[in-house]
Amino acid sequence: MRLSVYFLPTLKETPSEASIVSHRLMLRSGMIRQSSAGIYSWLPLGLRVLKKIERIVREEQDRAGAQEVLMPTIQPADLWRESGRYDAYGPEMLRIKDRHDRDMLYGPTNEELITEILRGSVKSYKDLPKNLYHIQWKFRDEVRPRFGIMRGREFLMKDAYSFDLDYEGAKRSYNKMFVAYLRTFERMGLKAIPMKADSGPIGGDLSHEFVILADTGESEVACHKDFLDNDWLKDVDIDGGLQPTVDAFTEKYAATDGERDAAKEKELGGDLVTARGIEVGHIFYFGTKYSEAMNCRVMGPDGGEAALEMGSYGIGVSRLVGAVIEAFHDDDGIIWPESVAPFKVGLINLKVGDAECDKSCENIYAMLQDHGVEVLYDDREERAGAKFADMDLIGLPWQLVVGPRGLKQGVVEVKFSDHKANTRAKEELPLEAALKRIMV
Amino acid sequence: MRLSVYFLPTLKETPSEASIVSHRLMLRSGMIRQSSAGIYSWLPLGLRVLKKIERIVREEQDRAGAQEVLMPTIQPADLWRESGRYDAYGPEMLRIKDRHDRDMLYGPTNEELITEILRGSVKSYKDLPKNLYHIQWKFRDEVRPRFGIMRGREFLMKDAYSFDLDYEGAKRSYNKMFVAYLRTFERMGLKAIPMKADSGPIGGDLSHEFVILADTGESEVACHKDFLDNDWLKDVDIDGGLQPTVDAFTEKYAATDGERDAAKEKELGGDLVTARGIEVGHIFYFGTKYSEAMNCRVMGPDGGEAALEMGSYGIGVSRLVGAVIEAFHDDDGIIWPESVAPFKVGLINLKVGDAECDKSCENIYAMLQDHGVEVLYDDREERAGAKFADMDLIGLPWQLVVGPRGLKQGVVEVKFSDHKANTRAKEELPLEAALKRIMV
Repeated sequence: MRLSVYFLPTLKETPSEASIVSHRLMLRSGMIRQSSAGIYSWLPLGLRVLKKIERIVREEQDRAGAQEVLMPTIQPADLWRESGRYDAYGPEMLRIKDRHDRDMLYGPTNEELITEILRGSVKSYKDLPKNLYHIQWKFRDEVRPRFGIMRGREFLMKDAYSFDLDYEGAKRSYNKMFVAYLRTFERMGLKAIPMKADSGPIGGDLSHEFVILADTGESEVACHKDFLDNDWLKDVDIDGGLQPTVDAFTEKYAATDGERDAAKEKELGGDLVTARGIEVGHIFYFGTKYSEAMNCRVMGPDGGEAALEMGSYGIGVSRLVGAVIEAFHDDDGIIWPESVAPFKVGLINLKVGDAECDKSCENIYAMLQDHGVEVLYDDREERAGAKFADMDLIGLPWQLVVGPRGLKQGVVEVKFSDHKANTRAKEELPLEAALKRIMV
Repeated sequence: MRLSVYFLPTLKETPSEASIVSHRLMLRSGMIRQSSAGIYSWLPLGLRVLKKIERIVREEQDRAGAQEVLMPTIQPADLWRESGRYDAYGPEMLRIKDRHDRDMLYGPTNEELITEILRGSVKSYKDLPKNLYHIQWKFRDEVRPRFGIMRGREFLMKDAYSFDLDYEGAKRSYNKMFVAYLRTFERMGLKAIPMKADSGPIGGDLSHEFVILADTGESEVACHKDFLDNDWLKDVDIDGGLQPTVDAFTEKYAATDGERDAAKEKELGGDLVTARGIEVGHIFYFGTKYSEAMNCRVMGPDGGEAALEMGSYGIGVSRLVGAVIEAFHDDDGIIWPESVAPFKVGLINLKVGDAECDKSCENIYAMLQDHGVEVLYDDREERAGAKFADMDLIGLPWQLVVGPRGLKQGVVEVKFSDHKANTRAKEELPLEAALKRIMV
């Protein structure tokens, strides 16, 4: 993509309404634009990141055997009356009347709708297990939306729903999602710690929030310090049996705000870490709560009818864009992990109009694209300083800087931004060596 | 995908609420499920088709230089008050009050929101032209939703908005979309005829609906019989200059319901065709209607300020799923063009449990997947008749039928469903020849 035509409205000043770094950087780098309180438009650069995150989530759901569907945003209130949640849900639910005065709502979650779909389709235990997910916009009418897309009102969520004949099956489904979540967040460069979370009226252990530690987190969490180890996912055979993996990640203490255990924490002593946390996922077993209320049953192998055992599994897809930025940035801007970066390479032409620079840049641009590398080519007639600042702000993993002085010496500047080390290192290299470095 | 685990709730009976063939076939083949009047969930098979259509639309928008954004579904009423449309829009607009009693609405279209984004970002004629599109769910509260997803309330639409300094630029943007639309529909196997459409208060010629002829169309349209020619796109150099292409497609008579011209039609005589039509796209130039009302201006090359010249360009993405089915089906079911088919190949194991059949099918299944071919493998323990009926119903381009009798003779049955010829032809072939035929 050529920056001269790209719609990338970056801001020089820090917007006053943004109180956390991800919100500031997303506005400044032209990723999003607010349309009303807690509701945002995604501009081209932001949408590219959102889609990369969405793709990783989708691939790991598919790999775990979940099947993608797409439920609508607007749901009938009657379904929620069946489960009893229409009255129980607070003012976060956006309630709507249609032109025929029927009660509708903008879905904040989809347990009722997916249960309605299953009860009309699945008749026998032979049709199980099933895990259906969708990636769809949700609405929760937060009283005070803030932190940009981290706590918006309209947000993109992946929610999966598993249906099994019995508890053992439900637990297998839960474990599959547990491991899929570990993989999902790891692929984005994130260390998301599975923490014991509120399991609601069902009780039991099958409820975990996946939490990123960050100063701007919404609540205080606590965990064993081993979770901070840099190699924490290395020793786990993630493709092996699932229960050992789940056990390995749950045997050590890790608890969300409401689930903390003072006695256990005292015991841990110096091994305890407390920090602010950002929730990026939540997995949850809730038994027959909805299937009983909504009469979603199958014929079991013994000929009797059984209400389905269910679980739900959420990932905050749009929130993750902010979470990644909270985790990886410096004073100059974002530092994207390559897996979610909007482009892999930023190519800077230091002297647009100079025949040698133009020719060299056009060649590099074409060559990288031919090799399937996503490049943002800064071909604008701008000061070098402005180009450097914009490129650092949007934080692509690689920058290639081509200028007349370097070309005379046969070199270009390569800048690598490393999200793990939180560094931006540059060096001069012959063009061929630079390209080799980038295309590894 | 193995059919034994796939969530594909097909129906044997024809649902009574469905009055047109696409609605019937989508319900019967387990593509969609109604959640309330005019609002549908997309089940796995339907979602695959929706995504393929979405991808073709996206690729052709990108190729034409449009840039993808994503605006939210919920918009503030105040923006629509600026343009004057909040009061002008009828009861099709879903109006909502949030918890702070602010007027919001579920976007039926996005001229206001995109203009608001541009006016805050674009300052100079040097930032033009721009064409921004998004693919997002819309809501129009139809008084009597019907025909399934063809005339639903919540529907997926691609809408693009072009911004230019002057009329000449706007016309270039219009032509680009005109040609992109021809390509888009052709890639789906559809013959969408560009027809003169209502240009509203602006007047002029720059308004075309793209219309598919089908008995179940919503209105009567008329055109020169040459548009029915099977080779109509062949002779046009679609990558050449755009104006000759646009002229070639607009010089012959073609008009939507409200734009028909009795005198011209009389003149055409035997060359006139009248038929029912389904609108699948609409492109539209509207000048400075919104940019004047909402104060979206740039500095021109002469130093003066100019309101932007705009156009909007819609494609009914979810509606197209129905339109393709209306165009391509027979008594047994759908006949998908390969470009939008949910899978390319349906593999039928006639005798699950038979060692030879199972082994052969597993090999074919693995081999096709290794070659990147999307396969739906019917590995269910079902009667042959039920398997044939389901496979014909969902209408994949290729079927491979593997049975014990054929294997003994070293052959399998290959069935090719041709959407253009509206035929399903089968023959027995040695396995290798069959695979070769399919993988061309």
